[in-house]
Amino acid sequence: MVTMDKIVSLCKRRGFIFPSSEIYGGVGSTYDYGHYGVLLKTNVKNEWWRAMLNEREDIVALDSAILQHPKVWEASGHLAGFTDPLVDCRTCGQRFRADHLADLPCGRKPSKHPGETSECDLTEARDFNLMFETTIGPVKESGSVAYLRPETAQGIFVNFKNVLQFSRKKPPFGIAQVGKSFRNEITPGNFIFRTREFEQMEMEFFVPPSEAQQWFEHWLGERERWYEELGIRPDHLRLRAHEQDELSHYSSATSDVEYLFPIGWSELEGIANRGDFDLKQHAEHSGEKLEYFDQASGERYVPHVIEPAAGADRATLAFLVDAYDEETVEREGTGAGEQRTVLRLHPRLAPVKAAVLPLVKKDGQPELAREVYRELRKAVQAEYDDGGAIGKRYRRQDEIGTPFCVTIDHESVEQNTVTVRERDSLVQERLPIEGLAEELARRVQAPWSTPKLAPTPATDG
Amino acid sequence: MVTMDKIVSLCKRRGFIFPSSEIYGGVGSTYDYGHYGVLLKTNVKNEWWRAMLNEREDIVALDSAILQHPKVWEASGHLAGFTDPLVDCRTCGQRFRADHLADLPCGRKPSKHPGETSECDLTEARDFNLMFETTIGPVKESGSVAYLRPETAQGIFVNFKNVLQFSRKKPPFGIAQVGKSFRNEITPGNFIFRTREFEQMEMEFFVPPSEAQQWFEHWLGERERWYEELGIRPDHLRLRAHEQDELSHYSSATSDVEYLFPIGWSELEGIANRGDFDLKQHAEHSGEKLEYFDQASGERYVPHVIEPAAGADRATLAFLVDAYDEETVEREGTGAGEQRTVLRLHPRLAPVKAAVLPLVKKDGQPELAREVYRELRKAVQAEYDDGGAIGKRYRRQDEIGTPFCVTIDHESVEQNTVTVRERDSLVQERLPIEGLAEELARRVQAPWSTPKLAPTPATDG
Repeated sequence: MVTMDKIVSLCKRRGFIFPSSEIYGGVGSTYDYGHYGVLLKTNVKNEWWRAMLNEREDIVALDSAILQHPKVWEASGHLAGFTDPLVDCRTCGQRFRADHLADLPCGRKPSKHPGETSECDLTEARDFNLMFETTIGPVKESGSVAYLRPETAQGIFVNFKNVLQFSRKKPPFGIAQVGKSFRNEITPGNFIFRTREFEQMEMEFFVPPSEAQQWFEHWLGERERWYEELGIRPDHLRLRAHEQDELSHYSSATSDVEYLFPIGWSELEGIANRGDFDLKQHAEHSGEKLEYFDQASGERYVPHVIEPAAGADRATLAFLVDAYDEETVEREGTGAGEQRTVLRLHPRLAPVKAAVLPLVKKDGQPELAREVYRELRKAVQAEYDDGGAIGKRYRRQDEIGTPFCVTIDHESVEQNTVTVRERDSLVQERLPIEGLAEELARRVQAPWSTPKLAPTPATDG
Repeated sequence: MVTMDKIVSLCKRRGFIFPSSEIYGGVGSTYDYGHYGVLLKTNVKNEWWRAMLNEREDIVALDSAILQHPKVWEASGHLAGFTDPLVDCRTCGQRFRADHLADLPCGRKPSKHPGETSECDLTEARDFNLMFETTIGPVKESGSVAYLRPETAQGIFVNFKNVLQFSRKKPPFGIAQVGKSFRNEITPGNFIFRTREFEQMEMEFFVPPSEAQQWFEHWLGERERWYEELGIRPDHLRLRAHEQDELSHYSSATSDVEYLFPIGWSELEGIANRGDFDLKQHAEHSGEKLEYFDQASGERYVPHVIEPAAGADRATLAFLVDAYDEETVEREGTGAGEQRTVLRLHPRLAPVKAAVLPLVKKDGQPELAREVYRELRKAVQAEYDDGGAIGKRYRRQDEIGTPFCVTIDHESVEQNTVTVRERDSLVQERLPIEGLAEELARRVQAPWSTPKLAPTPATDG
C-alpha cells in the first residue's frame, strides 16, 4: 500500500493539495486545494449529490449558514459536551490531550500518570470545547457570542419544519447538505484526514420510528456501495459497528464505513441512528413543535433520524490513496523499462477527462489539435498540452489520472483520426475526430471496473 | 419594478431562501438556502466556473482555507485598515456606524453631529475591525489568534508562487476561487444583499504591468456580458467608475457593475485594478519573491492584478429580481383572468428544468408520467408532480421558474406523445416521448433571449 508521504508529495507536486499560507510557514493542518484538487473534490461532491438527489426522489437539498444562533449548540449538546480532556504541564507550559498522552509528538514525553515524577508535571485534566468561538456585531457581550458550526447536521434539524412545509415531503424523506465545518482539534493531522476546517457531506433521513432499523441498514448498504461504485477496492472497505461505550450520547446505533488508509483502518463515514434526540432537543429549546402529522392515519410522531455523515476531504483522500499506483512500463520498441506513477481514478472522478497532445509542434498538428481540443471541452473537462516529449506528457497526465490521452499525429492531419490512449490498459485505439467528443463523454459515464494495481510491465509508446 | 418584500416572500413561500435559525428567532441577517435556492445558487456558481474555466484557457481554479495565517491579514492591510467608524451613545448604550448616522433604523435617531444636544449623546468615533476573530488551538495567546477571511482574494495572492509552478501558466493568466467570506458588518441588511456570511466568486488575473489597463477593460466587458447572457436586462445594468476618493488603498481604478435592485442602483460586482500592491505586500511580509521571470525576454517583474469580484448571493438575488414577473393569464376557454407569478429565469439558471405532470391520477397516466420522469431526470433536473389541479401545478412550477412543463394526457397513453408547455410564452407543443430528454436538454442549453416582463394577457390551459 502507498505511504501517506507519497500521496502528500504527489498532491504537492501536481498542485492538488498543499499547506495553506505556506509563504508564512503555514497554519497547522490547514490545506488549500489547487486546480486539480478543486476539480477532483468537486467531482466527489457532485457524485454525492447525484446519489442523493438524482438517483432518488426522497431527498431535498439545503445549505444552512455556518454562523447560527448559539441556542442551536445549547440544544444539540455541543456547548456542554463537545469537549476533549486537556492537561497542562507545569514545567514546559504545553497542553496535551489527556486521552492521547501515549501518542505525543513532543520529545519531552510526559508521564502517563499525572502527578508521577517525570519530565512533565501535569495538572488534572479539564474539558476543552472544540467549537471555535467568535463574536457577532461590535458589542462583545454574552448575547453576541457565536460559534463556527462543528457539523452541518444541526442546520438541517432546525430547518426540519420549514423543509417539511416547502418540500411537501413526508417521512421517509431526507435533507442533504454539503458545507464547511470547523473543529478546534487539539491534535489534527495525517494530511487532510483530520483538519480543523473541513467539508462535510451530511444527510439526515427522517423516518417513522418503527422503520428506523430498516432504514439504518438501507443506508449502510447504500453508502458502502457508493464508494465501491466510484472505484474503491472492496477489500479496502469494511463496516464496523460501534461498541456500546463508543456511541455518542444521541445515538442508539452507529456503524462506520472504514477505509484502509496508510495510517490503518480508519473512519471514512459514520452512519448513525440518531433516534428522535435532535428534533426533541430543538423542540424543547425552541418551543416549536418538530413532529410529523400523518393526515391519512391521523398519527402524530417525532420522526427518527438516520444520518450518513461523510467528509468530502476524507473521501477525496481515500479516492487518491486507492487510485495511486506505480508500475514499470516498456517504452515501445526499446525494451527499456520506465517507471510511471498513475492515478487509476474512476473516470467520473478524474479532474481532467481528456488531454489533447500533438505529437510534434509542426506540420499542422498543433492547429488540428487545438481544433479537436475546442470541440472536446464542450463535452468533457479537457486539456491541451504541446510542451515536451510525448512520453513526458503521458507521464504528467498519468499522475493527475486523466483517463484518455488524445494524440494528434501525421495520420490525423491526413485522415481526420486520432489515437486515444487509455490510462490503465495503455491500449491505443484509432478513432475518427468526428463524434469523438460524444464518444469520450459516453466512455466517462460508462460502467467501469476498478483496474488491478501494478500490472505486469506494459508497452506505452 | 418588484419590491424586495415580494422577493423575500416568494423565496420563503417556495423554500428558496429563509432566515437562518428561525426557530430560535433568527440570527441577524443570516440566511439558509432551501432546495430550490441551493439548485439556483449552484447553477449561478457553475455558470461562473464555466465562464472562467471552460470558455477560456488562461484561468485555473483554487480553493484556499477560510482560516489562514494572521500575517496574511497584516500584509493585506485588513488588520490595520479594514474598519468602520463606530460611535457609542452615552444615553441609550447603543452603537452606530458614524458614517451612516443618517440611515439609522433606530427610532431614537441621534444627532448627526456628535456632541450636539439630541436624544442621543454620542462619543467620538473609533475604528471597529470588520474581521471575525477566533482562536486556533487550546491556548488563548496572541500567536493563535485567527480571523475568518473577509475576502477570498488573499488566499489567491499567497498561493501565487505555488500556482505559477504547478500550472505552468505565465502572465496573463488568472486564478479563480469560489467560497465563503465573513464580515462583521455593523449594519447588514436588505435580505441577502449584505450579510455577515456570504459567498464570493473572485478571480485574480495576473498581467504584465504594461497590459493592466487593456485587461481591466477586457474584464469590465466580460463581466457585464456574463450577466446579460444569463438574462439580466441591459437597462437594469450599468458600469460605474469609482471616483478617486472612493478607491480602496490598493486600487488605481475600480468600476462596479451595478444592478437596479429594488433598493436602487447598487454594486453587483467590482472590477478593480489592484496593481502590484498585494504581491508586493506579501513578498515584503513573507520574504518570498513573488514575481514572474520571463525566460524568453529575460524580464523579471511583479505582475499587476485585475480582479473581478462577484458575490454569489448578490448575483442570485439579482437574477431572482430580474426574473420576477406577475401577469394575468386567461384560463383557456373560460375567458376568466387569473393572476400568475412567474420567475422568467434563464433556463440554465432555473432550479428545475422540467416538471412531469399527469393530467389525471388514473387511466395509466401516472404510470406513464413516472416513466417519462425517470428518463428526463437522467438528462436534466426534473420533478414529478401529480398533486392537485393542473392549473395549480403550473402555478407552482411558474413560481420556481421551471421552463418546461411536460403534461401527460390520454393522448400520451395512446400515442406516446406529451404536451410541452413553455413557461414564458405559454405555448404548448406536442412532442414524441422518444428523444424528449435530449430535446429538452438541448433547449435548456440553446441560445436564449430574455422575455419581456408582464406581456399582454395570454391563454394557459
